[in-house]
Amino acid sequence: MAELNGVRPVNQRNVTISESFFKNLMRLASENIIPYQWEALNDNVPGAEPSYCIRNLRAAAGRIKEPHGGCVFQDSDLFKWIEAAAYMLMWKEDPEIERHIDETVQLMEEAQQPDGYLDTYYILTGIDKRWTNLRDNHELYCAGHLIEAAVAYFRATGKRRLLDVAIRYVDCIDARFGPEDGKVKGYPGHEEIELALVKLYEVTGDEKHLKLAHYFIEQRGQKPLYFDIEAEKRGDGQGWSRGPYSGNRYYQAGAPVREQKKALGHAVRQGYLLSGMADVARETGDKSLTEACKTMWKDITRRQMYITGAIGQSAYGEAFTMDDDLPNDLIYGETCAAISLYFFAQRMMRLDLRGEYGDAMDRLLYNGTISGMNLRGDRFFYVNPMESWPARNAGNQQFAHIRSERQKWFGCACCPPNLARMISSLPGSVLYQKADTVYVTLFTSCEAKLALDGGEAAFAVETGYPWDGRVTVRMRKAFPGMTLALRLPAWCKTYRLNVNGEYARSIMDDGYLFLTRDWQAGDEVEFDMDMPVTVVRAHPRIRADIGKIAVQRGPVVYCLEEVDNGANLPALSVRADAKFELHRDEAVLGGIPTLACDAKRLTETGWDEYETYCDRHAPVKEDVRAVFVPYYAWNNRGTGEMLVWVREEA
Amino acid sequence: MAELNGVRPVNQRNVTISESFFKNLMRLASENIIPYQWEALNDNVPGAEPSYCIRNLRAAAGRIKEPHGGCVFQDSDLFKWIEAAAYMLMWKEDPEIERHIDETVQLMEEAQQPDGYLDTYYILTGIDKRWTNLRDNHELYCAGHLIEAAVAYFRATGKRRLLDVAIRYVDCIDARFGPEDGKVKGYPGHEEIELALVKLYEVTGDEKHLKLAHYFIEQRGQKPLYFDIEAEKRGDGQGWSRGPYSGNRYYQAGAPVREQKKALGHAVRQGYLLSGMADVARETGDKSLTEACKTMWKDITRRQMYITGAIGQSAYGEAFTMDDDLPNDLIYGETCAAISLYFFAQRMMRLDLRGEYGDAMDRLLYNGTISGMNLRGDRFFYVNPMESWPARNAGNQQFAHIRSERQKWFGCACCPPNLARMISSLPGSVLYQKADTVYVTLFTSCEAKLALDGGEAAFAVETGYPWDGRVTVRMRKAFPGMTLALRLPAWCKTYRLNVNGEYARSIMDDGYLFLTRDWQAGDEVEFDMDMPVTVVRAHPRIRADIGKIAVQRGPVVYCLEEVDNGANLPALSVRADAKFELHRDEAVLGGIPTLACDAKRLTETGWDEYETYCDRHAPVKEDVRAVFVPYYAWNNRGTGEMLVWVREEA
Repeated sequence: MAELNGVRPVNQRNVTISESFFKNLMRLASENIIPYQWEALNDNVPGAEPSYCIRNLRAAAGRIKEPHGGCVFQDSDLFKWIEAAAYMLMWKEDPEIERHIDETVQLMEEAQQPDGYLDTYYILTGIDKRWTNLRDNHELYCAGHLIEAAVAYFRATGKRRLLDVAIRYVDCIDARFGPEDGKVKGYPGHEEIELALVKLYEVTGDEKHLKLAHYFIEQRGQKPLYFDIEAEKRGDGQGWSRGPYSGNRYYQAGAPVREQKKALGHAVRQGYLLSGMADVARETGDKSLTEACKTMWKDITRRQMYITGAIGQSAYGEAFTMDDDLPNDLIYGETCAAISLYFFAQRMMRLDLRGEYGDAMDRLLYNGTISGMNLRGDRFFYVNPMESWPARNAGNQQFAHIRSERQKWFGCACCPPNLARMISSLPGSVLYQKADTVYVTLFTSCEAKLALDGGEAAFAVETGYPWDGRVTVRMRKAFPGMTLALRLPAWCKTYRLNVNGEYARSIMDDGYLFLTRDWQAGDEVEFDMDMPVTVVRAHPRIRADIGKIAVQRGPVVYCLEEVDNGANLPALSVRADAKFELHRDEAVLGGIPTLACDAKRLTETGWDEYETYCDRHAPVKEDVRAVFVPYYAWNNRGTGEMLVWVREEA
Repeated sequence: MAELNGVRPVNQRNVTISESFFKNLMRLASENIIPYQWEALNDNVPGAEPSYCIRNLRAAAGRIKEPHGGCVFQDSDLFKWIEAAAYMLMWKEDPEIERHIDETVQLMEEAQQPDGYLDTYYILTGIDKRWTNLRDNHELYCAGHLIEAAVAYFRATGKRRLLDVAIRYVDCIDARFGPEDGKVKGYPGHEEIELALVKLYEVTGDEKHLKLAHYFIEQRGQKPLYFDIEAEKRGDGQGWSRGPYSGNRYYQAGAPVREQKKALGHAVRQGYLLSGMADVARETGDKSLTEACKTMWKDITRRQMYITGAIGQSAYGEAFTMDDDLPNDLIYGETCAAISLYFFAQRMMRLDLRGEYGDAMDRLLYNGTISGMNLRGDRFFYVNPMESWPARNAGNQQFAHIRSERQKWFGCACCPPNLARMISSLPGSVLYQKADTVYVTLFTSCEAKLALDGGEAAFAVETGYPWDGRVTVRMRKAFPGMTLALRLPAWCKTYRLNVNGEYARSIMDDGYLFLTRDWQAGDEVEFDMDMPVTVVRAHPRIRADIGKIAVQRGPVVYCLEEVDNGANLPALSVRADAKFELHRDEAVLGGIPTLACDAKRLTETGWDEYETYCDRHAPVKEDVRAVFVPYYAWNNRGTGEMLVWVREEA
């Protein structure tokens, strides 16, 4: 079961997060999000759209008589919630939540069919129709989330019942799909089970589980196209396979995965597929699959990703479109898509320990993922725009996908539990290890212990990241020759690295600073990254951002809000050499740093009401102070305009 | 029948267009568009989507057995074509076209039902279902176009057969709908018949025809809402009444017309409704209806109209959205919508002779309407964007409504015949008259004669407009005290006005220059408008255009094309004080003036391929020459990018 390249994340049980940005998020998850979502899953949140999840399961278990409610993939919300809660149980005891899960597992056992099948949609709407529409009906996707939940709960508690449910369901799936003669040559319309099966393999060690994941990835897009065969049998059309997505490209199923060079189609599907591909590449040592992952990583992060890490430019199908097409207003930028890219980055890190992947994880963590929820953790965005004009979101139906305010819950509530599981599993992304090196990848205060090849190590990290660039590592236990690798983020231009108060020579490689020493318990490493406000531009090939700048400090992208700057934010412009002042005020967004600088505002001076287009008026600008707040924290002070990319004042 | 305010357009039979921009358009219409469209209506154009128009009519006449083909409103394409051809017959004999029309009228007589009903869709698909879906199924809309065709053909040829068909159909409609007890309180889902009935009234003098138009306008949006009653009877939903268009606002039927203060919903519907309202206001002298028209005129032209005159911001429903929401890329800007605004402007002119309406007619004529066809008149745009990026039109489904190239014909081919009728009726918009004043409103070379209150007048106009601002009027026949009013366009800042070579004192009022004299035959008026290139800005409330400029010369808006300026047009920027050079080269777009100026182009210098967002690169710009071509003439030299609003270089 050891990974072929020897890289692995440090077990999240061995990383205890102390007071920090992460701890705050995790507290939000454990105190608000996870309990709140349990109520949502039970349809107990007044004014929120019903989830039906538990009701569906109770009906499938035969305890009540109710029709299936919600989307065809409704089960997955529940499974993601179990997974999130399971991670939480690794760092916080919560007997009530554990009891909820155990009771849910009991229902799942009751609902599970004799052959292992377990999907409430088909159990309640007609099991004879199961497996007839892999393209659209998400059975294998839901199965993937069931598996992920089972693995997490087993790892958290050691309880096997849910794991056994999952294994039985996988047996049922494996009996039906696979490369062997007589088996159906299908694969999921929404990828997810691939990465889940690799997780299952990591706990079971059963090669069958890895093989099935491998099969789903290799079969995808092979001719004849399975979804076409299936659609013809059903006598229905091409689903989302229209325009740029024709020939099943919407599902990343138009060609074998190694032949796909550009991210296209549904963004979450794409992110999960790539995560599964990277998992299989790692576990099988398949170099061409690794190369395919790298090609796609580059396409996404260099040509199709917003500055916040958001991906999926188009509301039409929640999808990728094409290189350099990054409209700031029309953007979809689904929270789940950003999370899927975070998962992919985690896997790329395990394939190849490079700072670039950690930079992307930072970009996603502090911007495009957590923007999906409010600071209290009880309201959620599905879509995360780079600019929002509430009047237009309401008045122009083409922008109707952009909600001006976060919502309590959604009928299709994939994003909130996805955020919960990302947050509650944060301890698992902080440190990676390989041989005698520990890679400090995400910066957070924590206590860590781990077994390296050369011995045991333990240390404490202390930092105010992402608001402060100083990171202190105190060795509790170490051994000579051990290497401490500190990620040097791309945003960091100057830093100081001392050990026990003295300059320490390090080696920089692939975005990490490597310190190898005769470590002693008590050694103190001080890594002090200067964190000025920076003015960022986009590559000139990204048309939507030409002539504009974005403001960033450390990994945090900032934005303008109407509440601070008045309406018509596009009328503001900022010089690239503006001097920024940092403010922290407990009364404003709980004291997170805001920024202010001199700016110009285009006025209506000289214009008459009746003039629309006119050659008589030179622009008249007034001096104003512009106030920027962290992007993720927007829309926490009422509804108003928001803008990330600001016009550059010459 | 005299209009209450005494304003009327000079009869188009009395305005003979000489060699000019208009003449070129009319030649295109008579030699290319009208004959080509006849072939299209007969499904004889290889590679074009079939029209089915003549086939439907032949089937409805019982001559062949074929199902109905095309849209529910397919008949209207044929009727608009007849109308266009009829106008053409006023200035050009064409026995073959006249024969086609007569044969078509014969088919219409055969297809017309005993009670006068005549709509091939319901005749062929089940006449028992007629009048059951006024909201969506366009019967009254098609009837309106039938009436317009009949009036035009009667005026052109004096032949009554089609007029009688129309009158019988109107009798059928009048028997069913109206304010009287026992009649259905319906009105059209797509307005058009209102303005058509007023045209019919102008030739028949039958008050019933005006009354029916008046009824349709007054009943619209009265509670209980007719479309809701009808939908409930059919047991179906709200149609386009979603989001901003809820409550039938998409159809301008959510409130009585005087209570509607903002243009909303389907743009062509809105334009036709307002045209009909203005017609009824004029013919009835209804002041509150006139005020309603003025309110809507202001909303459209000041808050919801593009610089080319294009209207309808949203592809979702081809519709208006809200004030100041004028996205340049997502725009719909249907050709027919611009034409509908042109019709509305014509009517506003008849309500109140103001230069503003003439300015709008100019803006529409030289930009947003004729951009709908190529210079040969055989390819058509439905959508007229302010910028086009062909790769994205293909790669991002949200932009799929923007065709990168004009098309041969459309399944829903409302725009080509609409353009044809606008062009072939151009002589009717050149001059307006009131009492002893003749208003030279559109500038074109022509010979005109007219009867004013004080006597007969005749004169010749000579001009190279819109490329040259000099307009010469030579009196052939005139009388003392007659007034010549010359429109002074808003774009014109300086001009000279001489009579017989000497300065002539004029009075400026409402956008016209008034010259009252003891006119003699042989008097020569020289109106010489300076026509420099101007750099236009949009009102700062229009967010999409902030920081950008547009280039205009006279009434003609210019644009950048990839063929002249390379790809990535948003990388170009132009100073507001740029010096423009004018070029005319027969080999380039047939010799229409193009413009060139110094510009900057943002380069990729300093950027590495792998950098997407970076704080290290100040913009590096290179000096280039930018070439601008008239907007309407874009996409006549292959497929490529196009851009109207260019970033302003500081």
